[in-house]
Amino acid sequence: MKVLVINCGSSSLKYQLIDMENENVLANGVAERIGMSEGVLTHKQPGKDNVVFNEDMPTHKEALQILVKALIDENYGVIKSLDEISSIGHRITTGGEKYNTSIKADDEIIKGLESCAELAPLHIPGQVMGLLGCKEVFPGKEMVCVFDTSFHRTIPKEAYMYPIPYEYYEKYGIRKYGFHGISHQYVSAKAAKMLGKDIEDLKIIVCHLGNGASVSAVKNGRCIENSMGFTPLDGLEMGTRSGSIDPSIIPFLCEKENKSPKEVEDILNKESGLLGVSGVSSDCRDITSAKNEGNERAKLAYDIFVYRVKTTIGAYTAAMNGVDAIAFTGGIGENACDIREAILTDMEFFGVDFDEKANDVRGKDTIITKEGSKTTCMVIPTNEELMIAKETMEILNS
Amino acid sequence: MKVLVINCGSSSLKYQLIDMENENVLANGVAERIGMSEGVLTHKQPGKDNVVFNEDMPTHKEALQILVKALIDENYGVIKSLDEISSIGHRITTGGEKYNTSIKADDEIIKGLESCAELAPLHIPGQVMGLLGCKEVFPGKEMVCVFDTSFHRTIPKEAYMYPIPYEYYEKYGIRKYGFHGISHQYVSAKAAKMLGKDIEDLKIIVCHLGNGASVSAVKNGRCIENSMGFTPLDGLEMGTRSGSIDPSIIPFLCEKENKSPKEVEDILNKESGLLGVSGVSSDCRDITSAKNEGNERAKLAYDIFVYRVKTTIGAYTAAMNGVDAIAFTGGIGENACDIREAILTDMEFFGVDFDEKANDVRGKDTIITKEGSKTTCMVIPTNEELMIAKETMEILNS
Repeated sequence: MKVLVINCGSSSLKYQLIDMENENVLANGVAERIGMSEGVLTHKQPGKDNVVFNEDMPTHKEALQILVKALIDENYGVIKSLDEISSIGHRITTGGEKYNTSIKADDEIIKGLESCAELAPLHIPGQVMGLLGCKEVFPGKEMVCVFDTSFHRTIPKEAYMYPIPYEYYEKYGIRKYGFHGISHQYVSAKAAKMLGKDIEDLKIIVCHLGNGASVSAVKNGRCIENSMGFTPLDGLEMGTRSGSIDPSIIPFLCEKENKSPKEVEDILNKESGLLGVSGVSSDCRDITSAKNEGNERAKLAYDIFVYRVKTTIGAYTAAMNGVDAIAFTGGIGENACDIREAILTDMEFFGVDFDEKANDVRGKDTIITKEGSKTTCMVIPTNEELMIAKETMEILNS
Repeated sequence: MKVLVINCGSSSLKYQLIDMENENVLANGVAERIGMSEGVLTHKQPGKDNVVFNEDMPTHKEALQILVKALIDENYGVIKSLDEISSIGHRITTGGEKYNTSIKADDEIIKGLESCAELAPLHIPGQVMGLLGCKEVFPGKEMVCVFDTSFHRTIPKEAYMYPIPYEYYEKYGIRKYGFHGISHQYVSAKAAKMLGKDIEDLKIIVCHLGNGASVSAVKNGRCIENSMGFTPLDGLEMGTRSGSIDPSIIPFLCEKENKSPKEVEDILNKESGLLGVSGVSSDCRDITSAKNEGNERAKLAYDIFVYRVKTTIGAYTAAMNGVDAIAFTGGIGENACDIREAILTDMEFFGVDFDEKANDVRGKDTIITKEGSKTTCMVIPTNEELMIAKETMEILNS
């Protein structure tokens, strides 16, 4: 049983072929500059040299054709024929309110996805191209759409509705959708396993901290909150995104800077967050170095990041009336020991008995609170591809 | 020692004359429709009939002249001459970063206030007119400006800075200022008194819930958080204000509804919140009635209100690493027993042992958790006028 996982952007295509018997990754890679000149596809196989294809790829279909070539190459390929691939799972950024569970990707669904494009205009069109490309390159192969929003379908209405005129929800679907759902689902399930408990009995907070960052509250296995909103701009401070701000700042800046709302939104998406506050970098590692060298604005960017995660943990603990586990994942969550420590310091009220020594870990499933800590904190490297592959099999078997 | 407290809006002037020996209110009232036709000033004295003046008041000065007439009237007046008034305290909506403590209102200060007008364009101009009017009507009388932001001056930088390009803070002073400071200061001090403890040793959360609403965190007597931001639009769901929303919603609505950013901001200020969600009313009492009659959108507006207060309490508990007291004030906080109950239900993790019977109270200092509750919750009617009068005396005596 081998499942191919596809994750498309507007000009990129990431993939991973997973052997579901043992959950081993057989091959993975990324195609970049699709639809542009100087396209490149980098194909990786554990224990072997990377294979690089420098070929222009006018659409996602050509990227898939190169990928097939690489997978079945008689010298370095990992499968003999495409028959070995049982199915294909596609990561889809948002299903809006229309698709709130993983679903078999038939023609109608692919067409229907276009109605979600408005909610993620940078992502959905490329993902539809990936689906259509697969239909041609892997004819007859069963495919599943796995949505990054569907884990959030259980968020209750008082948490997902905004206090704005109700008609905007009816007319435009303006509400909180939440994002990073595949990661939050994977990590919360893993956290329950590490605790040796049934997820049905647990209150878990997952902090997915990367260049994009969000926190989720998972109560009895159901997601009831996520800090991203209508779009991935809301919530925490991110690499270049502002997260939550007083909404009045937008009209104020439009007037003062003589910019359109879209231009201000662009600034909030691309020039804000760690980058905008520090003036140094959007990369958390650069921020930490600069802070440690005494850069005050880098320290401020860092402190805001930590403060927002900490207070979001508090808010979600109130939403669940308690917390059993706090899990960290994503590039920052898995690797930045100092940031985890800063977040979990002075959190005794929340039952956290932090273990400094155990926390000295990167990218490995680890419990980072002391034995007996009322709330268990942990590092759990996310694995969205495996989650997509599992969902794909589950949908096709059900 | 009698202090006159003045609270001006753009077309209104509220006042209260307080005898500071016993903190009794000798007279109070409100002038409405200043600068418009059909002006009216309603003058009240405890235990006596109201006196109503139907007179046009071109500026705040004319309102003050009527007020003087009423105060010293030989039939129903409460003082013999203006000499009995020792000083005048003015409520000022915001001091920006320029004025972060109460301050004697000399000519320079009054002029300087105009630089804050941009931060509260609906309020500051009227308040400056109130100050100038008092200078003429009460010549030589000492006056103090008490700012609704100054209690928030101790909010740390990681809480008051937004993750947007730093230059906007430098150029325009875009940051969190917080509001309702006078109320939060009064209520937190009163909460400490009711607990019989030194405020220096306490972590207090104050929920000022009215048509405008905000939550504050007061740690060891210093305010470290407030849910309002750069403007009073941010934070909780309010009567007609949206509070926090995904910032992307503004550019989205500008495009879809073909509106300017200012027009969308107006909708967020005047047509959102309880009113926008329910379609029923901006008044919490109407919302509760409609909810109880089965109106689903009224129930939603109600649930969002409760949920946001509850999660904000959680967030601020994390910011302080604990909470000793949660105090409710403002029109809703003091009177809406059901809303307090909804907020404090399922809050055992936060040490709340709610007392349903004690909670059956309106507008009276009352503890509404059971004896032995780890966290003490209470109702404390706010008294901003008394706080302003006290600040006024303190500034003039120091």
